[in-house]
Amino acid sequence: MNETLNRAAASAVADAVADVATDADAVANVADLNPQQHVKALGERARTASQVLAVASTRDKNAALVAIADCLDKRVDEILSANAQDMASARERDLDAPLLDRLELTPARLQSMSTGIRNVAAQSDPVGAMSGGDRQPSGLVIAKMRVPLGVIGVIYESRPNVTADAAAICLKSGNAVILRGGSESILSNRVIADCIRQGLESSAIPTDAVQLINTTNRDAVGALLRMEDYVDVIIPRGGKGLVTRISEDARVPVIKHLDGICHVYVDEGCDLDMALSVSVNAKTYRYGICGSMETLLVSQKVAEAFLPMVNDAMAPHEVELRGCEQCLTLQPHWTAAMDEDWSTEYLGPVLSVKVVADVNEAIAHINHFGSGHTDAIITADIQRSEAFVRQVDSSSVLVNAATCFADGAEYGLGAEIGISTNRMHVRGPVGVLGLTTEKYVVTGNGTIRS
Amino acid sequence: MNETLNRAAASAVADAVADVATDADAVANVADLNPQQHVKALGERARTASQVLAVASTRDKNAALVAIADCLDKRVDEILSANAQDMASARERDLDAPLLDRLELTPARLQSMSTGIRNVAAQSDPVGAMSGGDRQPSGLVIAKMRVPLGVIGVIYESRPNVTADAAAICLKSGNAVILRGGSESILSNRVIADCIRQGLESSAIPTDAVQLINTTNRDAVGALLRMEDYVDVIIPRGGKGLVTRISEDARVPVIKHLDGICHVYVDEGCDLDMALSVSVNAKTYRYGICGSMETLLVSQKVAEAFLPMVNDAMAPHEVELRGCEQCLTLQPHWTAAMDEDWSTEYLGPVLSVKVVADVNEAIAHINHFGSGHTDAIITADIQRSEAFVRQVDSSSVLVNAATCFADGAEYGLGAEIGISTNRMHVRGPVGVLGLTTEKYVVTGNGTIRS
Repeated sequence: MNETLNRAAASAVADAVADVATDADAVANVADLNPQQHVKALGERARTASQVLAVASTRDKNAALVAIADCLDKRVDEILSANAQDMASARERDLDAPLLDRLELTPARLQSMSTGIRNVAAQSDPVGAMSGGDRQPSGLVIAKMRVPLGVIGVIYESRPNVTADAAAICLKSGNAVILRGGSESILSNRVIADCIRQGLESSAIPTDAVQLINTTNRDAVGALLRMEDYVDVIIPRGGKGLVTRISEDARVPVIKHLDGICHVYVDEGCDLDMALSVSVNAKTYRYGICGSMETLLVSQKVAEAFLPMVNDAMAPHEVELRGCEQCLTLQPHWTAAMDEDWSTEYLGPVLSVKVVADVNEAIAHINHFGSGHTDAIITADIQRSEAFVRQVDSSSVLVNAATCFADGAEYGLGAEIGISTNRMHVRGPVGVLGLTTEKYVVTGNGTIRS
Repeated sequence: MNETLNRAAASAVADAVADVATDADAVANVADLNPQQHVKALGERARTASQVLAVASTRDKNAALVAIADCLDKRVDEILSANAQDMASARERDLDAPLLDRLELTPARLQSMSTGIRNVAAQSDPVGAMSGGDRQPSGLVIAKMRVPLGVIGVIYESRPNVTADAAAICLKSGNAVILRGGSESILSNRVIADCIRQGLESSAIPTDAVQLINTTNRDAVGALLRMEDYVDVIIPRGGKGLVTRISEDARVPVIKHLDGICHVYVDEGCDLDMALSVSVNAKTYRYGICGSMETLLVSQKVAEAFLPMVNDAMAPHEVELRGCEQCLTLQPHWTAAMDEDWSTEYLGPVLSVKVVADVNEAIAHINHFGSGHTDAIITADIQRSEAFVRQVDSSSVLVNAATCFADGAEYGLGAEIGISTNRMHVRGPVGVLGLTTEKYVVTGNGTIRS
């Protein structure tokens, strides 16, 4: 199998002039399968592998992860060469600069990919952990055991590093995974997936624990989304368009990440220097991340003092400031915010600013216009902090900290497979723990129900 | 509002000769709304109420529950009279005996309904509980707070007691709820829902926290299932047909309960008297419950001794025994089990019996033919017990106890809104805790990301 895949990858690399986005037949070993059959076969193998993986020891899982990292390290040149072919095809098709940047692998990026896998190996393993254990009147002892979800389908854009990251976090959490990367990265992904397989072959973990959908035919995605018997959850990683499309088509549950319309509320009586440094960080740390602040809410009691500070601090960053009516009376040169500004995720150097009466108006604004992602209060008052934390209905509520911290590594989760804006199962950054669930373990002594 | 509903209910009771299953216009206050508009209006009000309810104090929620129970106690005659009308219509339409039994309310059943609500009030409240709190290298303290899911839609068959049960458990967990009962129970449900509203009116909880879909038009269900903006989760309570249909149509996440194909495995070397008493209890405690044993697996090392014991013990219960080939060599008068027997939920006095080589074959059989609901091992061996518990992929795995214990009250959850065969979010019996989720609460001190 390994050899077959190697040959397929090599021949595909050589053949990169073909339009990989549509040419499903380029892959020798799936030429005789239609996309549905191919994905169903992957599903069956994944389900079987998941049963072994679910009870694999932490030691075996970690050994497999280290073996995978070693393979990636050894085959750097091969990966870079496949990636160069992907990049050449992408440039020929005039793909835009951000996509090319995400597609490109460099020795440094490969190094950080294998380091990431070693870090996942070093993380603690939640599978098998027991909790509860209360004895009931019947005599039964009721406990819970943490177990993997089963089989995870990960659908992502053309970012080949996700192939390795997603495989590692799924393996660690005891889940089999079926990966489907963007068509522009197919050659890179095939070599990376082959390294993963090679690593698994030298381990006690079944090689089918990580499988790549080996065709760029889009029908394969549709099949994956509806394969309830073989896939337990779908995780889409990409822009809102991808996530929305997948959520609409999926029969399998989806861990979604939609908008990040994040707010910072600057409370009356707070330390305005702190508020300023947090606000600037929340906006300018990186404009493109989901935890970036999009709207600044300012208590009317501090607006007169604070808005000029915001104005001056954002100027060197060339952040466009769009203010509410009250803002404009204090900062007449700002742009007037339109209704849609309050529900726009700019992901760029634009900030909407609104003066609010108090913490209650701030909470109401966030619950109405926000996306339930990450919102912060800057305050010195314990009661208003408590009200904000309790009442803001977001996956992360921060006190005196910048919204751009919304990230699995910063939360101590280790590797992150995404951020969930779902309410059920897992909210916020999703790490290894978020890919597990619990079952009841009930112990009696010949106990019968009367 | 209360008065309007009262009038509507009274007029509807008087008008019970109309075919309530199709006559959406019978309800005065929804006469000018189509089902979609009616359900959307309920959704908007539920969402608003859910924001108040999510931060309501335990004291206020409990007071509301007690007030509701008091109202139900006071209006027993009115409820029984509406129920008598529902029963009369159902009999006219020749509905079958089990449905009539589920539809019927008696003074004793009403008493247990209000006692159930008082019991929910007495349970502990998980909302607001904090966990975690580790400090990260950045200085941030990362904790989680337990919060309600939001708005829950409960769709159930014509069992009016569910109206009260579901309302109580949703209220206690801080969730607003939209109830849709079977059309045969509409008059009973309207009076019960009005008691709930009356109880809420005397409390600090918004009356829109519990709403009944006030039409039997089926388009209302379709609208509820797709109302992602206003409904966070759908819980269907009923047979597999109802649950499957709802799961297929829903855009909102569904907490499903599908098959309960439950097994008991009798291990070599176990106490056969214990195995027998547990097996008989698992099969005969109540045939119709989801935790009832459908297949008995017996180690070949004890089959010769154990099968005659099973034969004799099941005889007085008139349980039909369907055996595998090996069974039939030992018990030639048993029926031969067909392939489909291994994946059939009989819900009646039938039991399939299979001799297996060892615990590994038992586990493989359960993971292949079972439904991931509740499965038990009877054993004296710690290693085989451990293997069974770890490897059987079911929401409940029992050791030396009968499968018929699969139930929220027996697990110490208090009230139960159903049993989940989902893998994500919650597995097994779902109580108040299962209707909550967690959000991150992140505390800094002006912390910024560098």
